[in-house]
Amino acid sequence: MNTTQPTPVRVAQFGLGPIGISCLNVLAKKSWVEVVGGIDIRPEILSQDLGQLTGDNSLNGIATYDSFEALCAEKEVNVILHTAGSSAAISLKQMEPMIDKGIVVISSCEELLFPAHRAPEETAVAHGKCQKSGARVLGTGVNPGFVLDVLPTCLSGICAEVYGVYGERVVDASTRRQPLQKKVGSGMSPEEFESLGREGKAGHAGFQETLLLVAHALGWDVGPIKDELFAIKAEEHIKTDHFEIEAGQTAGLHQIVSASTPEGKIIYLDLKMYQAAKDPHDLVRLDANPPVEALVKGGIAGDLATVAAMVNAIPRMLKTTPGVKLMTELSLPCCPDKIV
Amino acid sequence: MNTTQPTPVRVAQFGLGPIGISCLNVLAKKSWVEVVGGIDIRPEILSQDLGQLTGDNSLNGIATYDSFEALCAEKEVNVILHTAGSSAAISLKQMEPMIDKGIVVISSCEELLFPAHRAPEETAVAHGKCQKSGARVLGTGVNPGFVLDVLPTCLSGICAEVYGVYGERVVDASTRRQPLQKKVGSGMSPEEFESLGREGKAGHAGFQETLLLVAHALGWDVGPIKDELFAIKAEEHIKTDHFEIEAGQTAGLHQIVSASTPEGKIIYLDLKMYQAAKDPHDLVRLDANPPVEALVKGGIAGDLATVAAMVNAIPRMLKTTPGVKLMTELSLPCCPDKIV
Repeated sequence: MNTTQPTPVRVAQFGLGPIGISCLNVLAKKSWVEVVGGIDIRPEILSQDLGQLTGDNSLNGIATYDSFEALCAEKEVNVILHTAGSSAAISLKQMEPMIDKGIVVISSCEELLFPAHRAPEETAVAHGKCQKSGARVLGTGVNPGFVLDVLPTCLSGICAEVYGVYGERVVDASTRRQPLQKKVGSGMSPEEFESLGREGKAGHAGFQETLLLVAHALGWDVGPIKDELFAIKAEEHIKTDHFEIEAGQTAGLHQIVSASTPEGKIIYLDLKMYQAAKDPHDLVRLDANPPVEALVKGGIAGDLATVAAMVNAIPRMLKTTPGVKLMTELSLPCCPDKIV
Repeated sequence: MNTTQPTPVRVAQFGLGPIGISCLNVLAKKSWVEVVGGIDIRPEILSQDLGQLTGDNSLNGIATYDSFEALCAEKEVNVILHTAGSSAAISLKQMEPMIDKGIVVISSCEELLFPAHRAPEETAVAHGKCQKSGARVLGTGVNPGFVLDVLPTCLSGICAEVYGVYGERVVDASTRRQPLQKKVGSGMSPEEFESLGREGKAGHAGFQETLLLVAHALGWDVGPIKDELFAIKAEEHIKTDHFEIEAGQTAGLHQIVSASTPEGKIIYLDLKMYQAAKDPHDLVRLDANPPVEALVKGGIAGDLATVAAMVNAIPRMLKTTPGVKLMTELSLPCCPDKIV
C-alpha cells in the first residue's frame, strides 16, 4: 500500500469579492490544495482572515495580504486564482509579478479567454515572459469558458465536418450575484441600456472571445464579428434580492454575436440573461456531419460553475507547457478528487 | 501574406473493412492530410487501390500493402489509423513495428480506450517503448471514446464536486453497420444471447473501459465493476438491411455497467442498442454541485462519429508527449479545418 501523500498544491486567491470568496470555499474542500492566503486592497477585507471572510473554519488563521509581493514574502505559492476584473490588458498587468515568479495564474477575467482579441501586444509580451519563467496563464469560467465555447468545440470532436456552430443560452439573472444582475441592465431604461451597448459600455464581457475561441479551435478564419445588444423589457413588476424593476424597464439583455468564414461557415451565439427568465437552458447545435444537438436542461448557471472551472483547471495547468494558454489547448476538463 | 503551406500529415490506414474505408473517405477530404496507403491481408482487398476501394477518385493510384513493413519500404508515414479488432493485447502486438518506428497510432480498438484494464503488462511495455521511440498510441471512437466517457468527464469540468455519474445511451442498431447489428444479438434466442453474455462472449466491447476512464479522470478508486447483459426481445417482426428477426427473438442488447467508491460515489452507465429502437438519444447526468443534465437529441450514433473521432485526434496526438495515451490526457476534442 502506498502511504505517501502527494504534496498539496499551494494556492492563493487574488481578489476577495464574491467570486473570490466562493473560490476559497471550493478550494478549502479539495484534499490536494493548501490555501496559503488571500490578496485584496480593501482595508475592510485586510482586517479579516480567510476563515472570517469565508465562514469556513478550516481557513481560520490564514492571512490576507495587500499585494502579491507581501504574500510571497511570507508564503510559498504555486497557483494564483485571479478574480479581479474583465479587462485582459489590466489583468495581464496585475499578473506581471506572478508571471515573473513562474507560477500558474488562472483568471475569471472574461477577455483572457482569448486575450489576443483585445490585448494582442500585452498577450504576446506575457506569453514570451511565461516561456522564460515557466509561468502559465489561463482565462476560464462558465461563460465565457465553457457553455458556448468549450462545449461546442468538444462536441465537434465526433464530427467529420462542421459547417455551422449555433449556441443559445438563457440565464435567469435573478439566480446570480448582484454585479451580474446590474450588468444585464436591471431597472435601466431600454433606450439608455441599448445606447450604452452601442458605445461598448454594456453587454456580456467575453462574448466575442467565446466566438473567437471556437473559430480558433476549428481553424476557421472568420470575418468581422457582428455584435448586437438588445434590452429585454420587463412585462410586469419584478422584485429580486437586489433590484426592483417596473414593467417596461430593462429586465436583462439579449445579445447575439455572429461571424462567418469566406466559405460560408457560420458561428452564431445567442445569449439572453434577464430577471425571471423563463426556461433557462443551454443549447448547442452543430450543423455538421454527423449533426449534433445537445441541450443542457436548466442551463449551467450559477457562479459556482465559474469557480469550479477555475479550481478544476489547476491540475491541468500544472501539467501544461509555459505560456498564455487557451482552454482548447489544455487536456479535457474534469473535476478530479486527486491529482494523478 | 503567408503563402507557405504546412506540410500535410502522411496517414496510412491499417485495416480496410467498413470503418477503415470510412476513415479513408474522411481523410481524403482533409486539406492537412496526405493519404499514403492502406494495409490489409485479404487478397481481394490487395488487388485494388484506395480509389477503387473507397470510390473517392482523389485516392486513385494510392496502393494497398500486405503489411506495415511493406508500406514503409515505399512510403514515409507519420500516422496510422488502426481499425482491426477489439482486443487491446492483440492490437498492441500489431502495433509493435509502428511503435518501434516512433509514429502516431490511433485505433478504434475498444479496449485501448483504457488498455491497462485488460492488458496491463502489454500496455506498460508499449508505453515504455513509446517513450523511447517517440511513438504515441490512442484508442478512441464514439462509444467507447466520447458519449459516455469523454462527454461526462468534460461536463464535470464546471462542477465543484461530483457524487455520481449517470449515462444512458439508446441506439437504433438498424442504422449501423452489419457487424454491429450482429454483435447486439440480432435474431438469436434471448437465452443463448444472455448465456454468451455471462461467458463474456457477447456484449458491447469497451463498456467497462468507458467506466474506468471516467473513474480515472475523476480520481475515483472504484471497486469491482458490475456488468450485466440482457436481451431485448423483438415485440414484432423486424426486417433490416441485414437481418430478419421474429417476435420474441433478440432484437438487441441492454447492458449496464456500474461501480462505486468506498465513499459511495457511483458511476452507472446504461446502454440499449437494438433494432428499431424508439427514441434514440444520449443522456448524461451528473449528480454534482452544480448538477448537470445534458441530452443529445437523437444520440450521436453512426459509425461516422467513430471515424471522425479518430481523424480529429491526429493533430492533438501529433502535439502530445510520447506514450500510450488516454482521451482525457489529450487537449480538448475538436474538428479542425487546419492544423494550427
